[in-house]
Amino acid sequence: MKTHQIQKINTKLVSLLDANRVHYDAATCHVYGYDNSRGHALPSFVLFPKHHDEIVNILTLCSAEEIPVLARGLGTNTVGASIPIHGGIVLSFEHFANIIKIDPDNRLIKVQPGVTNLAVQQAVGAHGFLWGPDPGSAAFCTVGGNLACNAAGARALKYGSTRDNTLALTAVTGTGATIHTGSQTSKNASGYDLTRLLVGSEGTLAIFTEATLKLTPKPTHSITIRACYQDVHAATTAITQLLAQATTPSTLEFLDARAVSLIQVHSELQIPKQSGAMLLMTIEGDAHSIRSLADQVAAAATVTGTIEVLLAKDDAQAAQFWQVRKALSPALRRLAPNKINEDVVVPVSELASFLEFCQQLVENHPVLLVCFGHAGNGNIHVNLLFDARIAAEAAAAKHCLTQIFEKVIEIGGCLSGEHGIGLAKKPFMHLQYSETEIAIMKGIKRVFDPKNILNPGKIF
Amino acid sequence: MKTHQIQKINTKLVSLLDANRVHYDAATCHVYGYDNSRGHALPSFVLFPKHHDEIVNILTLCSAEEIPVLARGLGTNTVGASIPIHGGIVLSFEHFANIIKIDPDNRLIKVQPGVTNLAVQQAVGAHGFLWGPDPGSAAFCTVGGNLACNAAGARALKYGSTRDNTLALTAVTGTGATIHTGSQTSKNASGYDLTRLLVGSEGTLAIFTEATLKLTPKPTHSITIRACYQDVHAATTAITQLLAQATTPSTLEFLDARAVSLIQVHSELQIPKQSGAMLLMTIEGDAHSIRSLADQVAAAATVTGTIEVLLAKDDAQAAQFWQVRKALSPALRRLAPNKINEDVVVPVSELASFLEFCQQLVENHPVLLVCFGHAGNGNIHVNLLFDARIAAEAAAAKHCLTQIFEKVIEIGGCLSGEHGIGLAKKPFMHLQYSETEIAIMKGIKRVFDPKNILNPGKIF
Repeated sequence: MKTHQIQKINTKLVSLLDANRVHYDAATCHVYGYDNSRGHALPSFVLFPKHHDEIVNILTLCSAEEIPVLARGLGTNTVGASIPIHGGIVLSFEHFANIIKIDPDNRLIKVQPGVTNLAVQQAVGAHGFLWGPDPGSAAFCTVGGNLACNAAGARALKYGSTRDNTLALTAVTGTGATIHTGSQTSKNASGYDLTRLLVGSEGTLAIFTEATLKLTPKPTHSITIRACYQDVHAATTAITQLLAQATTPSTLEFLDARAVSLIQVHSELQIPKQSGAMLLMTIEGDAHSIRSLADQVAAAATVTGTIEVLLAKDDAQAAQFWQVRKALSPALRRLAPNKINEDVVVPVSELASFLEFCQQLVENHPVLLVCFGHAGNGNIHVNLLFDARIAAEAAAAKHCLTQIFEKVIEIGGCLSGEHGIGLAKKPFMHLQYSETEIAIMKGIKRVFDPKNILNPGKIF
Repeated sequence: MKTHQIQKINTKLVSLLDANRVHYDAATCHVYGYDNSRGHALPSFVLFPKHHDEIVNILTLCSAEEIPVLARGLGTNTVGASIPIHGGIVLSFEHFANIIKIDPDNRLIKVQPGVTNLAVQQAVGAHGFLWGPDPGSAAFCTVGGNLACNAAGARALKYGSTRDNTLALTAVTGTGATIHTGSQTSKNASGYDLTRLLVGSEGTLAIFTEATLKLTPKPTHSITIRACYQDVHAATTAITQLLAQATTPSTLEFLDARAVSLIQVHSELQIPKQSGAMLLMTIEGDAHSIRSLADQVAAAATVTGTIEVLLAKDDAQAAQFWQVRKALSPALRRLAPNKINEDVVVPVSELASFLEFCQQLVENHPVLLVCFGHAGNGNIHVNLLFDARIAAEAAAAKHCLTQIFEKVIEIGGCLSGEHGIGLAKKPFMHLQYSETEIAIMKGIKRVFDPKNILNPGKIF
């Protein structure tokens, strides 16, 4: 945006919200131009709306002036979905972060989009409930961002993703029109499901101003189980056997050999030396059932090639088991300066062969591979580690990534399980979707946002 | 369609599928012109496709010739969604009813749309799984119909509706284009969610040719509980208390005073005389937990005004308890010749005041009211009983229905929980949705079906 345009738009924006919530200085614009993908682009304005009506007015202005608008939570997105690549306006929801109502009788909470996932969990936890989505970044990611990218986390295996736990939305379209989707009820068969269409649309269809989230009673008891295996094959056999049980763990996390050995080298945590793969599971139940459920799950986790299956004896040991998973990301940084972390999903039955495919693929290339993630959903975080300053490594990483995406689609999987498409996976959308399917998505975008001002250039 | 047109189109249709699967005789057209709403309209053709490619060819022809097309399962829809009000072609899926694959490792089943819900339950039951949706008509309703109307049933409280239990679809749009939505995985954050948009769209966006359904492990043990109350107020207090528990029953059915007295008069079933409301619940668990879970639920069901809470001692008694619910519909017919049965949904906390509102409403009008249904979801089947031959009764029923819909929306509910909108609720869509929201739905329809040939005139 040119200087005279900025002045003109600034005057209009200041008339819509207090001057101290309209920023166009270089420092603020710089800070709000990045997300956790490490990409960056400069917006012309950063606004801090507080009210629904302000967002209606801003979008009405942006529609008239054809200014791109990006809604931003706290910038934890890893695929570049919150980078303002076409400049324009970033709407930051930091001051739009109130819990509006907790309604235990109807098992719901109504919030503004800027509230963090953790704040929701704490608020509803006090009433004996949880909200399903639990991304690793829960403490510093917002509900608005969770909605935009259909965020999930480890316990999605039992509780589903954001899309499965959202009842109703208030949102503003690219023309500045207010829409209310869904209802304050757990069933709805009335017209097209705009709620679930908006969830996961990465801010390209409408901007959320209020969300009604579905709550689930918190189980009273849980047990964490850690299982170590000789190799990936044994671990994936156990996964299949675990999912055939009537008792589904609420989490079923997988770590491959390199992930396990990273922990062994770089942390104090005790893991059997010969472990070539690990599973971490949480079993939930009540006082009467929890022990027998855990025993059933432990039995199902025991296959040929199992080294040990340990039930955490108390909360402290459970926390220690989970520490292994949390220590992974910092440890990864020691292997190489650059990391591509993709959250592909494959059918659980294909996990073993997919992991084997990835391992064989990287053997002939100058990149390292570390795989871990939400195995119960087949949602594997495939980490390619390399040094981007070395051309051969950068090229190899790119080549391997393409091969991995092609394989994922070939076996019936999908590009993303919880991070979204953003910029990082946009070049691969044609692998998962036909031209017809992408044309339909673009057609739907035009219905909500005829001038293409909402987060333009993302997804497709 | 005029005779010469019928001849012309018939020639083309016979070239697309065998002549014995193309019907335009009056008798066949008559039979396929109704659904369970008792409405009727004559199609010009009834076709029995067997293959995806046939449907592509039929829709390509219909798009070119602008002929309306309606996909029909077995006609159990109660809101007129499967009545061909604009004539044209009815596609009957009776010969498109194969189970393609059962895949226990990935907890999914792949089916053609004409297979019945019951056939799916039986097929996956043999592998220890269930498919969530369990409409009362399971034995004679199809998966295609379940998908079209987002069908549910009593156990949706625990397992969700059709939309929550569908992973992927193959479908053909109004232009004859094939689309694949979703993936063979339980997580997906890749682009817009076309799967859940198509579920519940009542055949207006695309015609399904294959569905991948998400399976859930069947619990090993269950107990049925019957609770009788002095009045509706006591029953709704119990419902709120039950939903505040960590243990959610898989079903939580409600019967009002008139429903209970109908059973007392017209069946042999033993119910305490002074019962003014009843709850029927199913508790699920394993051998270790089931009894304690049932005891917890029974305790939560016990409030001031409780007459008795009975745990079924065996399967025979459980079946007898459920017989009460099943005896209701036949008994209703004894009250009046005509029935309007609406499946509105209200927030659970509003159930008591909503039921009271309905009762007070009908007191001043010549109609009878019987309410029962899926109370755990706030999904109440409101039955208005009257004699349509008496003008005053017909007018009163219509008046009361409008008042009831207005109340439902006022308290945050929705028009339909599991039947859909079809024709019956189309006049009330403006109560739930603004002009903007309906315009967005119509815009989405144009993206999928630019010539408005797919089930035209339904929903909005």
